[in-house]
Amino acid sequence: MRVLGIDPGLTRCGVGVVDGAIGRSLTMVAAGAIRTPADAELPVRLLGVEQGIEEWLDEHRPDAVAVERVFAQHNVSTVMGTAQASAVAIVCAARRGLPVALHTPSEVKAAITGSGRADKAQVGMMVARILKLDGPPRPADAADAVALAICHLWRGGAQARVAQAQQEFARKIELARQARGL
Amino acid sequence: MRVLGIDPGLTRCGVGVVDGAIGRSLTMVAAGAIRTPADAELPVRLLGVEQGIEEWLDEHRPDAVAVERVFAQHNVSTVMGTAQASAVAIVCAARRGLPVALHTPSEVKAAITGSGRADKAQVGMMVARILKLDGPPRPADAADAVALAICHLWRGGAQARVAQAQQEFARKIELARQARGL
Repeated sequence: MRVLGIDPGLTRCGVGVVDGAIGRSLTMVAAGAIRTPADAELPVRLLGVEQGIEEWLDEHRPDAVAVERVFAQHNVSTVMGTAQASAVAIVCAARRGLPVALHTPSEVKAAITGSGRADKAQVGMMVARILKLDGPPRPADAADAVALAICHLWRGGAQARVAQAQQEFARKIELARQARGL
Repeated sequence: MRVLGIDPGLTRCGVGVVDGAIGRSLTMVAAGAIRTPADAELPVRLLGVEQGIEEWLDEHRPDAVAVERVFAQHNVSTVMGTAQASAVAIVCAARRGLPVALHTPSEVKAAITGSGRADKAQVGMMVARILKLDGPPRPADAADAVALAICHLWRGGAQARVAQAQQEFARKIELARQARGL
């Protein structure tokens, strides 16, 4: 099973692809960041995020997508951009019928390090150890995205559950369409 | 010139289409709301908003789109959903190369009523008067979306400016693509 982790952001949107299954060792396939220029207008930046996510989905064909859940109470100055980038990422995945899971930062930290309050360095170190890398993926947003993908694989990534989620998902899209009278 | 106003939201996303130009009377073409079920998961709801916006763009072919600017400090409980719905609306319009303008609620109120602190009833009443309707568009989110479209037409909706904005916009998309190495 292949998971694309996404750490949403307008300036740097971290992305990381991990292959694996419960009880088997994990492999990092790719990691990086989608960047948009800080001086561009919001529509241009959101389009840039969309294009970048589409390219990662096209190239790596994940079975599921894990996105960091954004909360209103953190970093008020940047949270709106983060929420908007996450919406674009979620829609890109959902449009393809891929299951989309949202994990909180503390769920990710707890899954990777055993503590929900671990710092970034600790998460990066454990990501490197788990994936047998020489060091944490760079930039830091890429490491966070890889950690999200690992968290998703470990928290319940059995193939059967994914199949079930996909069916459930298709059913809900159908219900949503019906509710809108389509 | 035709403007689609969008008052973003997950439960009800208001939409309103107004035809007009500076110095000429305005005409409401259509108004309504895109709804998604509150018990559906976020990806399904965002997909529903995307489908709804696409349908309004297909049916009414606006020259420009005006979206309410969302601030982090208001209504913390719902602001994340509002920000995410606005991102989807902005991307739908930007993807088609349409100019997207963001107006704050107080800019809209000031344009319509002369006061940036007018209440919803006053805005609705003035929208009805400006458009020569028997009453404000329903539901309230539709009235807000129509008010956004009027605000956009009045704040600088001359055709020439739109043409300029479209050129500028295309140039920025190109710059953003270049910055991302495409």
